[in-house]
Amino acid sequence: MTLRETKMERTRELIAEVALALFRERGYADTTVEQVAAAAEVGTRTVYRYYPTKESLVFGFYAKMLDTARRELRTHPDETPVPELLGAVLDSVVRSHQEKPEEMLAAFSLAQETPTVMAHLAHLLYTWRQDLVADIADRIGGRSVDLVAGLAVEQTATVFTLAFRKWAEDGGRADLRQLTSTTLKLLHSDAVPLPPLPH
Amino acid sequence: MTLRETKMERTRELIAEVALALFRERGYADTTVEQVAAAAEVGTRTVYRYYPTKESLVFGFYAKMLDTARRELRTHPDETPVPELLGAVLDSVVRSHQEKPEEMLAAFSLAQETPTVMAHLAHLLYTWRQDLVADIADRIGGRSVDLVAGLAVEQTATVFTLAFRKWAEDGGRADLRQLTSTTLKLLHSDAVPLPPLPH
Repeated sequence: MTLRETKMERTRELIAEVALALFRERGYADTTVEQVAAAAEVGTRTVYRYYPTKESLVFGFYAKMLDTARRELRTHPDETPVPELLGAVLDSVVRSHQEKPEEMLAAFSLAQETPTVMAHLAHLLYTWRQDLVADIADRIGGRSVDLVAGLAVEQTATVFTLAFRKWAEDGGRADLRQLTSTTLKLLHSDAVPLPPLPH
Repeated sequence: MTLRETKMERTRELIAEVALALFRERGYADTTVEQVAAAAEVGTRTVYRYYPTKESLVFGFYAKMLDTARRELRTHPDETPVPELLGAVLDSVVRSHQEKPEEMLAAFSLAQETPTVMAHLAHLLYTWRQDLVADIADRIGGRSVDLVAGLAVEQTATVFTLAFRKWAEDGGRADLRQLTSTTLKLLHSDAVPLPPLPH
């Protein structure tokens, strides 16, 4: 990164941090983008340059975490086995949550309180999973590649989602990595019932 | 159902039908709840009695379909194996889509166009899956029952979601049951990569 890029990245992070803090303190609806700009000591136009909508301000860290996970996947050489890639994505997402647990819990709880924020999160996650499916499909090839890649990504995402929910319900006190491992072990076991094979 | 209940159910369905038709014709944003009421020849208060928000008007059939699937699950005796229950849910959802394919596609495309409608759909599906997890957990028991039930329901839902998406992309021309079967077969096969077991 150039010095200019590093500075831009810092500004972007600072805005997200300040926004999340204000939303938690005063409530999402009662905080304006102008107030976020003032608290971050930047102009409103600068805020909008980084975050096109108020909703997206909630997910500064979240979007970065998703980005990091995809970027990590791409650093793996072509011959990396796909399970290993999926493991790396899962690991990256867990690590990001462990680095900013309070921010992740706060963003999630704001989403639960405000429908447009939840819609933004749903869209963010949907787009990310679709991008991941494309990344994985590229490395699989063969028949029904979209469905196979879709199932692989959705199952990996489900493992994290279920672990995350248990963790969030517990106020972030439990060990997220442990919960993720437990869920992944169950997915690999015969303990999970599935609809029977069609005739 | 009593005569009164039957009449109420018909009114509820008529309102959903009329609303979806108007939304498709004039656009979601350009249609008011008053216009829906007028077209259905009922009062605005009647519309709100059945559908508390404009968003929920989009999902009249959809919510009924989810309801039907859960009700079917509950008709099965306690000793029914859980895979069979999940199969019955999947089957019920496919059948409902085959009965009202255009309505299902229309509701989904309205959700894709309007964030608040997507948020409503996401909430509807989230609540439904949580209820299903509770239903299934009740019938499983044992250790980590919430995670096992969660994985079972999420995997079943994923099978349908992936099949539905392929079907929707194709404008509803493909055979949804066939797509669902293909996806379920893949889930049962060794073809789907998963993150490796943690050490």
